[in-house]
Amino acid sequence: MTGIKVFAPASVGNCIVGFDTLGLALERPGDEIILTPTNRKGLRITKITGAKGRLPYEVEKNTAGIAALSVLKHLGAEDMGIDMQIHKKMPFGSGLGSSAASAVAGAFAVNILLNQPLEKRKLLPFALDGEELASGSRHADNVAPSLIGGIVFSPNEHEVHRILAPKGLMATVIYPHIEILTKDARNILSETVTLKQMVQQSANLASFIIACQSSNIGLLERCMQDVVIEPQRAKLIPHFQEVKDAALAQGAFGCSISGAGPSIFALSPNSFVAENAAEAMQKIFSDNKIKSDLYISQINQEGVIKC
Amino acid sequence: MTGIKVFAPASVGNCIVGFDTLGLALERPGDEIILTPTNRKGLRITKITGAKGRLPYEVEKNTAGIAALSVLKHLGAEDMGIDMQIHKKMPFGSGLGSSAASAVAGAFAVNILLNQPLEKRKLLPFALDGEELASGSRHADNVAPSLIGGIVFSPNEHEVHRILAPKGLMATVIYPHIEILTKDARNILSETVTLKQMVQQSANLASFIIACQSSNIGLLERCMQDVVIEPQRAKLIPHFQEVKDAALAQGAFGCSISGAGPSIFALSPNSFVAENAAEAMQKIFSDNKIKSDLYISQINQEGVIKC
Repeated sequence: MTGIKVFAPASVGNCIVGFDTLGLALERPGDEIILTPTNRKGLRITKITGAKGRLPYEVEKNTAGIAALSVLKHLGAEDMGIDMQIHKKMPFGSGLGSSAASAVAGAFAVNILLNQPLEKRKLLPFALDGEELASGSRHADNVAPSLIGGIVFSPNEHEVHRILAPKGLMATVIYPHIEILTKDARNILSETVTLKQMVQQSANLASFIIACQSSNIGLLERCMQDVVIEPQRAKLIPHFQEVKDAALAQGAFGCSISGAGPSIFALSPNSFVAENAAEAMQKIFSDNKIKSDLYISQINQEGVIKC
Repeated sequence: MTGIKVFAPASVGNCIVGFDTLGLALERPGDEIILTPTNRKGLRITKITGAKGRLPYEVEKNTAGIAALSVLKHLGAEDMGIDMQIHKKMPFGSGLGSSAASAVAGAFAVNILLNQPLEKRKLLPFALDGEELASGSRHADNVAPSLIGGIVFSPNEHEVHRILAPKGLMATVIYPHIEILTKDARNILSETVTLKQMVQQSANLASFIIACQSSNIGLLERCMQDVVIEPQRAKLIPHFQEVKDAALAQGAFGCSISGAGPSIFALSPNSFVAENAAEAMQKIFSDNKIKSDLYISQINQEGVIKC
């Protein structure tokens, strides 16, 4: 049996209106995992690149390792000899679902190696075992889109619903080189919201789904407002409001924090707007001497793939 | 010019998962309004039946009157001579959108009398003027379905979105003869909810919309849970939990308080279940010496109509 290589894409969690439940997959960046069958017993991580020494080689402490092991255990194949290489091709702590991509790649790669006994969607809980190790929670807003692609609503770990995206929709993501720990971004959040905020935030999520399903662009523009999370987290990202204003001024439908940040993402009707938004967003950071990386991407419709 | 008669249906506000934004229209009960052109100047209410003396004849203090007047003013026709008869054919304070039905009937009837210069959907803000007089708020969860029929999501007073309902869906509504003032039902609500409740309630609303649009019955069953409003209001309705349990035991998808109560409604996959649920629900009340009225209805797909 020869080895296999998979690629799991980065993703935008929360997606403005769906805290912990909504996300979308990007074309790039993402993580690669290569598995090679061996005669030794059990799963082993043999190589990690792109992680600057921040990822452990112990399988049970590694996000991709845990997800892979979880699939192997479920299938009664944990004794199978496998060498795993992990090639991180995206930044840590960026708000782009780095741990989710690793977990999805790990679970998917093992399933491929075993001739796909599980449907792709059924890998969700195993990938979430990896995500849980990294983030302490089983929210699927990054894992689900990285797994199946598209804009995905996942109310719990057993359900994923693809939301049909309007044609041509483009995501612009800017990652400023600032560190925010997901834990801090979560701790900053108030444990309560007002009833009025709840009604508005719920209505925005419902409107987003209706707008996507019916390609109602006007509604999409009106509903992409986060009245709960963004106002609390924006202070963690210097110049957030200016960057957001710059994106919207270029014609983006909406702009907010990607996941727990510090990446900021904008959704645009076409690549022309997406590129103009990107330039305008990056200018704010460069004017303020903050380095940043840009990703302009269609909505990734495949999710994790075998390369 | 001869007179016209219209019928506006009752509705179920909140619809379990969409506090203040989601509702559905029933086939019956509802309100009738008859308009007759006269040579006198202005709108006059000449007859009210079924209201037990509880509705004022002063146009500007009457829900239907205000809604009608609002349309007339908008169209520059407030001097037109019109006699209005209001025939309430549904209970007050029942949680079935009684004021919304009157307001919708008033606005719609005037528009018909003037040869329909406004599209039906455009009548929403005028009908909300009437609803506001009665309930103090401009939430459209009753007005919107009474106006256009169906299951309707209305995030604000300018937007109504029909949610495609799975075929055969039936509503069972039971109105126990208990009085709850909408004001009290609103005052009992906590001004805050937890972030976790918000995420779950939003996810349930989003799931409901996805389930309806894709006729995903399994999802519909799982998502019809109100984790915020029902737990607070249930105590206002004696035997609520028993009635709910009885409906669910018969196979209803979901069961909760209709609007601000005291009516309780259940959503069922077909008329067989809807009727069994009705019987089981009514038995709880009758065993406890509480009189009640039952309505078993398809989802009304028309909304207000000219008779």
